[in-house]
Amino acid sequence: MRGHDLVGQLIGGISFTEHFWLLLTGVLPSPMQRRVLDATLVAIAEHGLTPSVQASRMTLAAAPEALQGAVAAGILGCGSVVLGSAEAAGRLFTEIAAQTAGGAGIEAAASRIVGEYRAAKRTIPGYGHPLHKQSDPRARRLFQLASEAGSTGLHAEIAHTVERLLPELIGRPLALNVSGAIPAVLLDVGYPLLALKGVPILARTASLIAHLLEEQQRPIGFVLSHAAAQAIDYDGEAPAGFKASDDA
Amino acid sequence: MRGHDLVGQLIGGISFTEHFWLLLTGVLPSPMQRRVLDATLVAIAEHGLTPSVQASRMTLAAAPEALQGAVAAGILGCGSVVLGSAEAAGRLFTEIAAQTAGGAGIEAAASRIVGEYRAAKRTIPGYGHPLHKQSDPRARRLFQLASEAGSTGLHAEIAHTVERLLPELIGRPLALNVSGAIPAVLLDVGYPLLALKGVPILARTASLIAHLLEEQQRPIGFVLSHAAAQAIDYDGEAPAGFKASDDA
Amino acid sequence: MRGHDLVGQLIGGISFTEHFWLLLTGVLPSPMQRRVLDATLVAIAEHGLTPSVQASRMTLAAAPEALQGAVAAGILGCGSVVLGSAEAAGRLFTEIAAQTAGGAGIEAAASRIVGEYRAAKRTIPGYGHPLHKQSDPRARRLFQLASEAGSTGLHAEIAHTVERLLPELIGRPLALNVSGAIPAVLLDVGYPLLALKGVPILARTASLIAHLLEEQQRPIGFVLSHAAAQAIDYDGEAPAGFKASDDA
Amino acid sequence: MRGHDLVGQLIGGISFTEHFWLLLTGVLPSPMQRRVLDATLVAIAEHGLTPSVQASRMTLAAAPEALQGAVAAGILGCGSVVLGSAEAAGRLFTEIAAQTAGGAGIEAAASRIVGEYRAAKRTIPGYGHPLHKQSDPRARRLFQLASEAGSTGLHAEIAHTVERLLPELIGRPLALNVSGAIPAVLLDVGYPLLALKGVPILARTASLIAHLLEEQQRPIGFVLSHAAAQAIDYDGEAPAGFKASDDA
Repeated sequence: MRGHDLVGQLIGGISFTEHFWLLLTGVLPSPMQRRVLDATLVAIAEHGLTPSVQASRMTLAAAPEALQGAVAAGILGCGSVVLGSAEAAGRLFTEIAAQTAGGAGIEAAASRIVGEYRAAKRTIPGYGHPLHKQSDPRARRLFQLASEAGSTGLHAEIAHTVERLLPELIGRPLALNVSGAIPAVLLDVGYPLLALKGVPILARTASLIAHLLEEQQRPIGFVLSHAAAQAIDYDGEAPAGFKASDDA
Repeated sequence: MRGHDLVGQLIGGISFTEHFWLLLTGVLPSPMQRRVLDATLVAIAEHGLTPSVQASRMTLAAAPEALQGAVAAGILGCGSVVLGSAEAAGRLFTEIAAQTAGGAGIEAAASRIVGEYRAAKRTIPGYGHPLHKQSDPRARRLFQLASEAGSTGLHAEIAHTVERLLPELIGRPLALNVSGAIPAVLLDVGYPLLALKGVPILARTASLIAHLLEEQQRPIGFVLSHAAAQAIDYDGEAPAGFKASDDA
Repeated sequence: MRGHDLVGQLIGGISFTEHFWLLLTGVLPSPMQRRVLDATLVAIAEHGLTPSVQASRMTLAAAPEALQGAVAAGILGCGSVVLGSAEAAGRLFTEIAAQTAGGAGIEAAASRIVGEYRAAKRTIPGYGHPLHKQSDPRARRLFQLASEAGSTGLHAEIAHTVERLLPELIGRPLALNVSGAIPAVLLDVGYPLLALKGVPILARTASLIAHLLEEQQRPIGFVLSHAAAQAIDYDGEAPAGFKASDDA
Repeated sequence: MRGHDLVGQLIGGISFTEHFWLLLTGVLPSPMQRRVLDATLVAIAEHGLTPSVQASRMTLAAAPEALQGAVAAGILGCGSVVLGSAEAAGRLFTEIAAQTAGGAGIEAAASRIVGEYRAAKRTIPGYGHPLHKQSDPRARRLFQLASEAGSTGLHAEIAHTVERLLPELIGRPLALNVSGAIPAVLLDVGYPLLALKGVPILARTASLIAHLLEEQQRPIGFVLSHAAAQAIDYDGEAPAGFKASDDA
């Protein structure tokens, strides 16, 4: 392990979060890096009965012989719509940062890149939330933490600059959400852009394992499925008329 | 392809079902073998909003960039509870057949093996159905078809013998279901035991693709998920209290 | 089933390929439609020890309790690089067809759309093959078959027009390959664009099941993995130094 | 979160490992519990080019649009053969512990249960290692750590008792390995038996994410696959003769 002795130094010597950073980068994180990574993993792990949790619990109910299959089914729902915006926001901030490296001011760079997104009819990832109109409390907490840890840098500044410019650039305000905060604080401590999607995936894996423990103790997989099927007015106007539903 | 020319002979020369048999066994099926395999694939393909279909549609809603992920999520629910009984019944019939090969009569062999299952508190796979108390119409149709095709053999006889003996052996009647009929008619035409689970998996893949076409045209993945979540009295008594449910 | 009686009419009455079409479209295919769909499924099913087959066999070796998990692992590799070009080519042909519906000639429409792909630095899907420089024999066979079946239409004409124009448009010839032929002949018989990716996925599922039967009879999953690991000069210059390799 | 405020107390207040424990059990871990859980996650995370890592990297190469699919493909290989022994050993220790709760001495209980495993021709999970004949250093380290943390209890004692009795019970010595040590130290701190498999799954997810970061930076997915295919004398004697290997 890159000059470290797994048995002698790492087992018992470092936390799982530190080990994750070491696996990704080849070096141990500083306390600041570890603290920020821990905070983002904690912020995004928890999820209620979201689609991927339901898919996972239904899969365990149908195939209890393979816990790994139920975890995999849940992870497969960590896609572009549900959890991809953290990575997409990271790419946005990185594009803007690249322009500032070329000498542009942050405001000018942000205006240009956001303008290109608008021209291509792309959404601005990392902003807006169905519930938290004003501001996402998890996002605020992550930035506060980064500030306390002294790790706030260019990407956080970009994230806030974009938020401030949005009313002018797109005609309405959109608050930074947790999917915008995560890449901003992680990129500022040197977390690799190409592994950003790994943060929600790892965090959700922990949550899925907890849900699957509960599914074994208090099964609801088939109940969920029955309720969903009942609620749908699945009336045969669909192309293929999937009406018979008894499963062998 | 085992002496066959893919381009010259197979493409346009054989059906997909014949090709599946060729891939499995190395030889083309007889018309009788093809007919029985087609019938079992048709009998088991269709499914309504079962758990694995729901898991698949929710996964596509969350991760539309990867149709293959949604298909995989649906296949992961083809496990021991939902679709494994066809394979399990095939093993039961094969165990009984092995005893008759050793000279035992079918009744004696069936009684002995079913007795062992009972002693080990195992269910008798391939029998009983929540809806079809008398007899599963799909099972009857498959046996009728095998009879017309002239392919009925030892495994079908074993399947029916077990059904006849069950009231005496376990104290109540249980009708042969489609998961018992499928292995019986397939083993009688030489389909390999170790590929039995492939029949429901392949059939359900076709059905999942149709559901995912519909999901693109008439999305219900998130609707299903919302209805399921609403229906569950998810009240915090669970070990981990997964109450917050907004998803980034 | 859309006015059809599963037990009375479909089981034993239609082939699996016809059932797949019925599930997708709600109506039974014509003999021509069935013939073309069968041909494409046969053309694309067969694959040797490709990455997804290896992934599937290694997964079964590691997790033999769940055949469905090994099939899912293999399907997850049916992505944009390996099998996605059939769908991408279908979208290309559909874009060109939409322009001709607006009154443009096929050549003009093809030139314009291919020009847009070039301007956006996108590859032209469905053309070129590492082995078959002149022309892909599977592609030729599919077009010949469509011609014999009388189903050749606008999409095949577009596919060939693009092939003819490519030397002029991109400066070098690229032959139509099987991933270009599949969508051309399928779209010409009314197969739905949004289900195009389902054809390679269903076909490969059949092949994966055959490989997994073989894996149970003649295991090579761990042998493949060992050979691959040996061949890689995995020398520790990688970021995280994954050198220890004994697996618990 | 069970009386905890996610934003105010948890984000920035606890580590990811502590959050995982909270999700599983509903309460925060003690420092001793956290320390043992961290140590087991670190001990099992790291893996070289094992089958599941290869399956994951090949999947990303073929389907780069979906990182979640490549992670899922890797997790699907966390099955009974490769990583299931930690859970299986946990069940063995729990069975023995249940007998001691009924009044039996540890030696008597261990002898009885191991004898039952032998009679059923089951392997004894958690013992023996292809490389570490004497004793697995990771296992020794975990027990040492538990001892330092003051958490050694009944399950560790059972694990060592079984190791001591094995020469007599099965005729040869087998050293406790890391898959035996993990459940012993975790069960001793109150980690739930039914979530034991989650420890290797979560740990390997972290490692897979690191491998997939590397795959993006230094691709070897197709190289691995090519080397594996070359190394196999795949000579057509197989049932289905998968010789053509060009992939569309």
